[in-house]
Amino acid sequence: MGKQIILTEVGPRDGFHNESKILDTATKVALIEASIEAGFKEIEFGYFTNLEKAPSLADVEMVYEKIKHHKEVKLKALIEDAEGLSRAVDAGVKQVKMSVSASNTYNMKKFNMSNEEKLRAIEKLVQEAMSKKIQISCAVSTSFGCPYEGKMTPSKIDTIASRLVEMGIQEIYISDTAGMGNPAEAENIFGFFLDKYPDRLFSAHFHDTRGMGLANVYAAIKVGVRRFDSSFGGLGGCPYVPGGKGNVSSEDLIHMLEEMGYQTGIDLDKAIQIGKKLETIFEKPMNSYVLEAGKSSELIRT
Amino acid sequence: MGKQIILTEVGPRDGFHNESKILDTATKVALIEASIEAGFKEIEFGYFTNLEKAPSLADVEMVYEKIKHHKEVKLKALIEDAEGLSRAVDAGVKQVKMSVSASNTYNMKKFNMSNEEKLRAIEKLVQEAMSKKIQISCAVSTSFGCPYEGKMTPSKIDTIASRLVEMGIQEIYISDTAGMGNPAEAENIFGFFLDKYPDRLFSAHFHDTRGMGLANVYAAIKVGVRRFDSSFGGLGGCPYVPGGKGNVSSEDLIHMLEEMGYQTGIDLDKAIQIGKKLETIFEKPMNSYVLEAGKSSELIRT
Repeated sequence: MGKQIILTEVGPRDGFHNESKILDTATKVALIEASIEAGFKEIEFGYFTNLEKAPSLADVEMVYEKIKHHKEVKLKALIEDAEGLSRAVDAGVKQVKMSVSASNTYNMKKFNMSNEEKLRAIEKLVQEAMSKKIQISCAVSTSFGCPYEGKMTPSKIDTIASRLVEMGIQEIYISDTAGMGNPAEAENIFGFFLDKYPDRLFSAHFHDTRGMGLANVYAAIKVGVRRFDSSFGGLGGCPYVPGGKGNVSSEDLIHMLEEMGYQTGIDLDKAIQIGKKLETIFEKPMNSYVLEAGKSSELIRT
Repeated sequence: MGKQIILTEVGPRDGFHNESKILDTATKVALIEASIEAGFKEIEFGYFTNLEKAPSLADVEMVYEKIKHHKEVKLKALIEDAEGLSRAVDAGVKQVKMSVSASNTYNMKKFNMSNEEKLRAIEKLVQEAMSKKIQISCAVSTSFGCPYEGKMTPSKIDTIASRLVEMGIQEIYISDTAGMGNPAEAENIFGFFLDKYPDRLFSAHFHDTRGMGLANVYAAIKVGVRRFDSSFGGLGGCPYVPGGKGNVSSEDLIHMLEEMGYQTGIDLDKAIQIGKKLETIFEKPMNSYVLEAGKSSELIRT
């Protein structure tokens, strides 16, 4: 199996989304451009939604307009509904991402829709996006456990994922939204999907809520996953764990992968610099081990 | 392969050793007894050494005397030299543990002995301990990397481990003292030793310095390791990373193992209570995820 791993930097959306301090557009653009400069080829840069749902991301159009675009860099926006898609289209966005939970209770709470209603809404968005030649991906959230319904199984997740596959979606994220997953589940769930749908891309989105973020990544790699989300500085939280840690930190993930001999194409030192900048910007330590401990390869010269 | 995993609680030695706040004997004894009550069957309770090397562990004889002993619970003491062994023997200790680094530079810096000198010293201690029917185990420290020499290989570690095997030592710890290991190495190194010496016990001692503690445990489990060290509250540090995180937290490890369907025989809720007590005692947050986020199984009831 290959040693190339593709990371998507989700900090500009998933990270900033969860921070109460709102950054100005120029700062966001600088951090996104620094991530591109570090080597990220995929970035989740924003969320086309209303002010109430994401006050810290309200300038999404301006951010997209000001980023220096590169042919080889995919800039993905989260959308939720027709209005969000329409705004993304108007802004010239070429990649959009949606989300549906594997849990009916979660879909009801978050979207006020049942699984079936949400899937039908997604289908319409997929058709609309495809008609406009916009790449559309979708996350199956709470796949490693829902804070209301508890654990999921591959077959339960597949009641959602199979429909996304039928709709023609090429990339599906299996997301541990509530940070409840463990590596045995990562192996089991990703093993199931990579085996069942060899013609689709399955990406892993892990949180480090209970310390298993990197363990889950390792387990997923072992069964063949080569696409992971991560967030600079480990920014982003778990909405069900007040103060709990969120996304796996990009620096820690790059560090682990490079230490194991995988190639990410990302310059770890530059990623660490971004993490340090975030500590200054947000005036707090990040959820990142290598920012504190340094790289394993940094030896004491005597 | 079996689903039973044996954890050794090393907090009372490795944890307290690294804390500047010195606990009184009664508090130490209460924490050790709480760990036994939680279900730990192996505990590293102290260090027979001089005041300078471990000021916070100076009352090791008193601690051992006051712990309520249980036939099925192994209480292990760290020793370094003949004087330490002699004190342990006098105190009535039945299990002692030693340490030698896989790196010659590290042995020179820590013990002022070369690998060969240190191994000969250990051999004498082993003979002495065995003649007194004391169980003796030994750690090969910095096996996942030495802060001076860098990465180790299975064959380099084996230049030490093979000698320990020859001496008749039944349990050998492969320790990531500097927190430099990654899961691919854990798989590689433990795979090598479990394969080469099927008649010995190999235990894993991982630090969480760079966020890979639980990932390393998972990788070691996959190749058959069933014995792990952990520390309540994640206490213990990495001497080469000021402020860096130390041992894998017992609560986080028990949580991950139980979530994956392994049995530790330890009551996670009681382990969490010990972690919370430590936060009060040391007046700071512990390096423990589940203390902050709670268990994955704690659902929101609506």
